[in-house]
Amino acid sequence: MTIKMISVLAFIGLIGICISCHHNSVDATIAASRPTKVEVLDSLKHPWSIAFISDEDVLITEKDGDLLRVDLSTGARVIIRGFPTDLVDSIRVKDFRDNSGIFEVVLHPQFMDNQWVYISYAAESEQGSTTRIIRATLQSDSLTEIVEIFTALPYRHDLFHYGGGMVFGQDGKLYATIGERFYNEMDQPDLPVAQDVTDPRGKIYRWNEDGSIPDDNPILAEGALPGIYAMGIRASQGITLNPSDDKIWFSEHGSVQGDELNMLSPGANYGWPVTTSGKYRNSSYQPPQLNIKNERQPVYTWLQTVAPTGLCFYNGYEFPTWRGDLLVAGLSRGSLWRIRIEENTPVSVEELFVNDRVRARKVSMSPGERLYLLTDEVNGKLLEIVNRP
Amino acid sequence: MTIKMISVLAFIGLIGICISCHHNSVDATIAASRPTKVEVLDSLKHPWSIAFISDEDVLITEKDGDLLRVDLSTGARVIIRGFPTDLVDSIRVKDFRDNSGIFEVVLHPQFMDNQWVYISYAAESEQGSTTRIIRATLQSDSLTEIVEIFTALPYRHDLFHYGGGMVFGQDGKLYATIGERFYNEMDQPDLPVAQDVTDPRGKIYRWNEDGSIPDDNPILAEGALPGIYAMGIRASQGITLNPSDDKIWFSEHGSVQGDELNMLSPGANYGWPVTTSGKYRNSSYQPPQLNIKNERQPVYTWLQTVAPTGLCFYNGYEFPTWRGDLLVAGLSRGSLWRIRIEENTPVSVEELFVNDRVRARKVSMSPGERLYLLTDEVNGKLLEIVNRP
Repeated sequence: MTIKMISVLAFIGLIGICISCHHNSVDATIAASRPTKVEVLDSLKHPWSIAFISDEDVLITEKDGDLLRVDLSTGARVIIRGFPTDLVDSIRVKDFRDNSGIFEVVLHPQFMDNQWVYISYAAESEQGSTTRIIRATLQSDSLTEIVEIFTALPYRHDLFHYGGGMVFGQDGKLYATIGERFYNEMDQPDLPVAQDVTDPRGKIYRWNEDGSIPDDNPILAEGALPGIYAMGIRASQGITLNPSDDKIWFSEHGSVQGDELNMLSPGANYGWPVTTSGKYRNSSYQPPQLNIKNERQPVYTWLQTVAPTGLCFYNGYEFPTWRGDLLVAGLSRGSLWRIRIEENTPVSVEELFVNDRVRARKVSMSPGERLYLLTDEVNGKLLEIVNRP
Repeated sequence: MTIKMISVLAFIGLIGICISCHHNSVDATIAASRPTKVEVLDSLKHPWSIAFISDEDVLITEKDGDLLRVDLSTGARVIIRGFPTDLVDSIRVKDFRDNSGIFEVVLHPQFMDNQWVYISYAAESEQGSTTRIIRATLQSDSLTEIVEIFTALPYRHDLFHYGGGMVFGQDGKLYATIGERFYNEMDQPDLPVAQDVTDPRGKIYRWNEDGSIPDDNPILAEGALPGIYAMGIRASQGITLNPSDDKIWFSEHGSVQGDELNMLSPGANYGWPVTTSGKYRNSSYQPPQLNIKNERQPVYTWLQTVAPTGLCFYNGYEFPTWRGDLLVAGLSRGSLWRIRIEENTPVSVEELFVNDRVRARKVSMSPGERLYLLTDEVNGKLLEIVNRP
């Protein structure tokens, strides 16, 4: 056998391997999109949010419970002490429209250095409740050095549409959603709160890490309250950063239909309640005719009721075909959505687990690019979504 | 260099190739799900159906036009002569509810031997129109030896819900959908036609190749018309065979919502209009209380209006992750759906091309496993859906 012959045989062998690799890749590809839920934790009281100190060490907020620190490798959980005492006792109300409780927990980008956590929750006074955002230092499983970042006055006795979504932008600023607090449009004043720049409700905010106002914040109008970054918001909970281009996206609940995905833009007005992609709860509601500047249309609108909440961009490797896609949890009927986006435009929308529904509060990526889902149940769960071909 | 050294080097080379193949497979996987429409034909008059004599030689029905034979490699098209003269002239009516015209064309499984084609269309008399199914021999671009397989009496002057979907089962039998012909439930007789086994409408049929009744057809009830295979159908157009397990699936239009996917089962009753997953057009309609036997629930129901029509199972290689999925075209708003199915249950539902909508009449696989879509437009198109990463 000559070297030339061997080379030829080796070449033929290479072709053979490549062909078989190609076939394997096809099989692997088929297998690569079989999402399966694996229960990581149960007995969570309507969990709302998860923040990853590491892939094992996490903070979880329970809407109807506590701020927990959980070791995912052992399941051991500790109730964080020192939570503000003005937290609404949300257990007392059984109405599904009771949105009160603890909402988002996010870590400061330099948490490892400063141990700062940011928490949004429904704070209570004799006048009712409202959305409050605090910063605290997490020390030995206690919150210390609590600083109030924001309180969305006035207090109201209604218990819905607090907002409370938070995310740190790539710019190191804290962004937060504040709902308008009305279940029915008929409760609006003549100038709807989301269109009133002197009213803190129905807005998205941007702050420095200490709650002060960034010098480069937009000015929406003369007399606008400090920190307002965008307006015309009804009931937004989910807000997230696209790590591929640093743009911020948020979900928004419509009144009757009109559930939306939006991209955040400085100074933008998302139109509510003057314009909506859905319908009003009360069909006789007539919004005022306002001159809306910088109006932005939703990037996507569902025709069905989804109640979209916590969302994230998928940057994992478990599902290679999903990389860069936006995942959105839905409360209504229980749904999880995968949205392929090109040039900031959804091109396909997949509803996952249509045969296995559960009210979904938030979908999150861990630092190690694992995908987690929190379920909005009395016996709420943390699920990991893995590929089980 | 010794032979052994060469072998070792070749082996290292093989490993290298395999690693690079693996990485390519991940990249290919990511790229493998970017569906893109490529126009193959235009100027089709509301095309309804396509039948593949080969990957290049196809028959296309135009709802508002002709039966065409087209060479896809050149685009050359010929109008097939000899079509029955009782075809409704569907151009005269501009109402979107005018469903009349030419519907499905399918080839006999042994078409290469017998040149038999089966065509469904709206046939006309002085009493109105109805669904007729014929068999013809295709000779020199003419239909000859036309045999009437079925006519769904009575004729009616309404122009909708003919049905007309056809498919050959793996058993060599011809299955066809016949609609109930009512736009509004208030037109129903006391015993709704879809629940009346002595009325040909609102049924699915199964025939031998010559229109005779197979010996093993189910008997739905005493006095049932010959050929009825299932009942309780409102308005079904799309019917297809799952090549992986030979089961037959069909789409069905709801009245107000209630669009459905169903699996065909012998002797089954799909419930219309006694039960529906949607709402009635007239909310005061009260269906009779009937004892429904062998009732089958839909496999999937859309919450939004889709008007699902021509469907097929994907068995191509252009999109490896789609293999085995059910694709469904939707008229309303223009939509194309990809449904992942496990154990005959949808597990995820993806709407494709949400940024590029067109009324979609039928999605079909060619013998060479290419994927085609017919658009329901005055200037209708045949589109191939390819992967353009």
